Amino acid sequence: MSRVDERLDEMERTVVREVPDDITITDVAFEGPELVIYTQDPRAFAERGDLVRHLASELRKRITVRPDPAALDPPREAESDVQAVIPDDAGVTDLDFHQDTGEVIIEAEKPGMVIGSRGSTLREITSATGWTPEVVRTPPIESATVSNVRDFLMQEREDRRDILERVGRQIHREEMSDDQWVRITTLGCCREVGRASFILSTPETRVLIDCGDKPGAEDEVPYLQVPEALGSGASSIDAVVLTHAHLDHSALVPLLFKYGYDGPIYTTEPSRDLMGLLSLDYLDVAAKEGRTPPYDSEMVREAIKHTIPIEYGNVTDIAPDIKLTLHNAGHILGSSIAHFHIGNGRYNVAFSGDIHYSDTRLFNGAVNEFPRVETLVLESTYGGRNDYQTDQEDSERELKKVINRTIERDGKVLIPAFAVGRAQELMLVLEEAMREGDIPEVPVHLDGMMWEATAIHTTYPEYLRDELQERIFHDDTNPFLADQFNHIDGGEEERQEVADGGPAIVLSTSGMVNGGPIMSWLEHIAPDPDSTLTFVGYQAQGTLGRRIQNGRDEIPVGNSNGRGRQNTVALNMDVETVDGFSGHADRQGLENFVKTMNPRPEKVLCVHGDESSVQDLSSALYHDYNMRTFAPKNLETFRFV
Amino acid sequence: MSRVDERLDEMERTVVREVPDDITITDVAFEGPELVIYTQDPRAFAERGDLVRHLASELRKRITVRPDPAALDPPREAESDVQAVIPDDAGVTDLDFHQDTGEVIIEAEKPGMVIGSRGSTLREITSATGWTPEVVRTPPIESATVSNVRDFLMQEREDRRDILERVGRQIHREEMSDDQWVRITTLGCCREVGRASFILSTPETRVLIDCGDKPGAEDEVPYLQVPEALGSGASSIDAVVLTHAHLDHSALVPLLFKYGYDGPIYTTEPSRDLMGLLSLDYLDVAAKEGRTPPYDSEMVREAIKHTIPIEYGNVTDIAPDIKLTLHNAGHILGSSIAHFHIGNGRYNVAFSGDIHYSDTRLFNGAVNEFPRVETLVLESTYGGRNDYQTDQEDSERELKKVINRTIERDGKVLIPAFAVGRAQELMLVLEEAMREGDIPEVPVHLDGMMWEATAIHTTYPEYLRDELQERIFHDDTNPFLADQFNHIDGGEEERQEVADGGPAIVLSTSGMVNGGPIMSWLEHIAPDPDSTLTFVGYQAQGTLGRRIQNGRDEIPVGNSNGRGRQNTVALNMDVETVDGFSGHADRQGLENFVKTMNPRPEKVLCVHGDESSVQDLSSALYHDYNMRTFAPKNLETFRFV
Repeated sequence: MSRVDERLDEMERTVVREVPDDITITDVAFEGPELVIYTQDPRAFAERGDLVRHLASELRKRITVRPDPAALDPPREAESDVQAVIPDDAGVTDLDFHQDTGEVIIEAEKPGMVIGSRGSTLREITSATGWTPEVVRTPPIESATVSNVRDFLMQEREDRRDILERVGRQIHREEMSDDQWVRITTLGCCREVGRASFILSTPETRVLIDCGDKPGAEDEVPYLQVPEALGSGASSIDAVVLTHAHLDHSALVPLLFKYGYDGPIYTTEPSRDLMGLLSLDYLDVAAKEGRTPPYDSEMVREAIKHTIPIEYGNVTDIAPDIKLTLHNAGHILGSSIAHFHIGNGRYNVAFSGDIHYSDTRLFNGAVNEFPRVETLVLESTYGGRNDYQTDQEDSERELKKVINRTIERDGKVLIPAFAVGRAQELMLVLEEAMREGDIPEVPVHLDGMMWEATAIHTTYPEYLRDELQERIFHDDTNPFLADQFNHIDGGEEERQEVADGGPAIVLSTSGMVNGGPIMSWLEHIAPDPDSTLTFVGYQAQGTLGRRIQNGRDEIPVGNSNGRGRQNTVALNMDVETVDGFSGHADRQGLENFVKTMNPRPEKVLCVHGDESSVQDLSSALYHDYNMRTFAPKNLETFRFV
Repeated sequence: MSRVDERLDEMERTVVREVPDDITITDVAFEGPELVIYTQDPRAFAERGDLVRHLASELRKRITVRPDPAALDPPREAESDVQAVIPDDAGVTDLDFHQDTGEVIIEAEKPGMVIGSRGSTLREITSATGWTPEVVRTPPIESATVSNVRDFLMQEREDRRDILERVGRQIHREEMSDDQWVRITTLGCCREVGRASFILSTPETRVLIDCGDKPGAEDEVPYLQVPEALGSGASSIDAVVLTHAHLDHSALVPLLFKYGYDGPIYTTEPSRDLMGLLSLDYLDVAAKEGRTPPYDSEMVREAIKHTIPIEYGNVTDIAPDIKLTLHNAGHILGSSIAHFHIGNGRYNVAFSGDIHYSDTRLFNGAVNEFPRVETLVLESTYGGRNDYQTDQEDSERELKKVINRTIERDGKVLIPAFAVGRAQELMLVLEEAMREGDIPEVPVHLDGMMWEATAIHTTYPEYLRDELQERIFHDDTNPFLADQFNHIDGGEEERQEVADGGPAIVLSTSGMVNGGPIMSWLEHIAPDPDSTLTFVGYQAQGTLGRRIQNGRDEIPVGNSNGRGRQNTVALNMDVETVDGFSGHADRQGLENFVKTMNPRPEKVLCVHGDESSVQDLSSALYHDYNMRTFAPKNLETFRFV
């Protein structure tokens, strides 16, 4: 009998011992990091409210209870019983019964009302029907991504269960090595921004953290081919952890499956959906630019199928010797700091991913309290000695000035923005400014992927800033749903209409003016001297955005595939740059994050920044806080313990 | 057509262009790092003395010329012609004709006389017979190791040729990667002594440097199982380089072949033979101590079959992007500093192996001049702040005092010594002391493997110190052949005889009194208060030698396998310790090595020393010479370039 089966046996004995005699346990099994308990008496289980919590703490496992099919009411009968239990206000939009697992997926506009206080409504559902409810939110703005992901996962349930069982057995396998060490290997994003990727390894386990591309240098990808990574076979990686969905962290995660990886991806639920959205767009852009995409959309589906979503703060076994906890990073929706607790506390490492330390309108600031942490791997995007950003308050004032000035002269404000993160932050700024009368109420048009990205934000409000949640849940006023926001879904015609119309604000991708619908907007608006092109984000070297900032006064339009001469239009708009809307902590924020971190780490690896930024930050942290700091190169391996 | 074949074609065209019209070239091929030229006219080739040298410099390859079989005189006829050309004084002891390669292996007591001035006699042999001569030395002291290795290699010639051709194609393969980096991964001997092992890697190539065990901690072996090493498959290693034959550098080289490695081992010829001797003994000792040896003797033969011997100073292609040069390290016979010239000079790394910087009686001091070197990986055995050794001159004076005192009272001097290195150094000390009348001429008995090791030393006099070579070659007085040296080959009976006889000196293994014939000698001599037990080498923690130094006054004898009570004899001998005969540079020597190194390296990795030794040396070199220094842990990876 294998060690896993022995362990399951032992757990089953504990479960049988701990549950009252009127509950029959038929089996226990691992599914991913969870323990699934099969019972003939789901109702009796549900009626004892504390039982699952008690078993979870006894077994130190997250627990799912699944009814035996025999214990279930038939779906048709159950459906009306479920509806009867749930308050009408919950706004149930879909019920989906899965005979194989005994689960009913309930999609509702207000999931909280389906759950009830401390899960009381959920238990009532099980008591009434035998079925195990699982609740998801109906996106307040319809999201193709969310519904595609949900439909796909439903359709792949069987496959997915196989994956989870396999992963579950892997996680709970016997530890083979007597040896003890912890290592981090840098596969990318060292002394550079982009292609984030690390391996955390012990004698037992290898975890890949992030796997991104490098915007503007698509051939510079993480060093996956070295033996430490996939060079020794994709199956030698036990788990992938994704800190957040930005492409410089996520773009090549699907590629792993093309290379034969077949294990889990741990990330938050919104990161999973955003990864789906952004990586499909990544393939699209590659195709449009005539590059061969490194993988196809089938691999994106594989990635989604292999994702095991975990919530902030939940300690999750991902290997016999590693527990993972994700914490809010404040950077974009679902962004996480990944904390690894290794070998029963032998060592603790936190990977910051990208962080914003202070609160923004969208998100609470990054968490920097951990039970333990000896080594911190810290992003350094703005780690340079002069990388201090304007206060967002000042930036907002400046932006409002630009908008007022433009609208006064009947112009339009065109803002290139990234679809995920900055666009939503700006929406909150604009919504408030209009609500408080700081700027006139004019239409705000959203073009490109940002509408879809916003829809995903509204699907996961529990990942937003506390105050924002408060407004959404208790005041029932969701700023993203404000009337002035308009989704440009009518293509060129609608853009022409907007261009021909009165004052308006347009947010459009791409954020660095290197492709996307912003090009059409410029074609329409560039000649208008009353309008303003307003940059609110970093414009990288080599992008059109940067060239415009540097004074370029014409815009390429129309056919640009190299045949025939490139047409251009004159850029007569005002060009303004309003800094301070970054999703990254600035130098002060990074220092504050470390200074107030609890506990203070012994070692800090400064990564994800230009050479001078990581060097500056590394030496500042060393001098000011007396910690051992490093500015690794790619392809180095650090050993701890 | 593969890149290798294209390259060979190109080389063949060059050869045909450069040789005179009367020489017909039939083929060219790679064999290991060399280019083999096949010709129908070996005699014409030989008669143009400079032609091979000219081709070598033109093609930047080492060149071997092989005759077509048709061009050869029949062996019987050739034999008398060869004998006629070689002066009688050369002392030819064997001729071996190999029809397949057209080579005749000539074993002679004086190889120099077979070679002639600048190879003139060799060329005469080819002129006369068509055969290509290869000369080896007849060991002045019969060596089972040398003759076994030679016989084995002759018997395996075909296999070996296949290996060399395969390796040759590997070395000259096309470079696949545009990427450029150089990394060193530490697999052992960091912050510890023993289990030396490193990987030097580029995008193209991975080289394993050394693969030793850890004496006294046999289960602590290099980290071969990590993906950077063999974890990604043994075939991913391109080459093994062995700095010297001591077991803490060589013991697990044969294990690589058990794990599926099938590539070349580059080392010096004496290191190859010593590796054979020591690793077979290693298996023997493991078996005697009841441990399961990690491999069997078949693997030692594989290692020998895969060895490509290279001489000090010969720049050798070992991969498309790496050239290896071995330089004298002054530590033991054949010991080398391995210098790697990477990517056409992109980077240069030297691995010191173990070194002795100043001259000893046996060897010239370690080489520290290189064309270029950016990073030095430096042994630190005696790198501690107080690791200064007694001058060998003082030590010798002290030793002679001990010997005189003992002999005056009719006692015997029993010296535990390591078979390879220190035993031969002591032989030179004793021979001189007797010759110069500093100590009486008494028999010096050599027991254990040291006689065999001495025989190997006499086989390769060109690896000994200049002055010693001078004596051997020109004065024809080989100190190792002095009359007083006696090989104990009569077992217990002979030992008893010596013990019962008059004053004598006995050198016996093991050097730390943990097994070997020294145990028998102690059983015989320990009770004799007129005799002296003299330690001349480091006694490690846990060995009987150390316990005796610490005052233990009885010696276990006879059956010690745990059944029955251990018998003991009283140790009444004088116990003396004479330091200063180390094969390692002391702290001063290490500093001098670095200080006078030309060019001075930018970075130094201090390895192969206790934690405090590497730390001390690392910080001293940093402060005194302003270089970047490191004290790596095992399992770290450093990137250069």
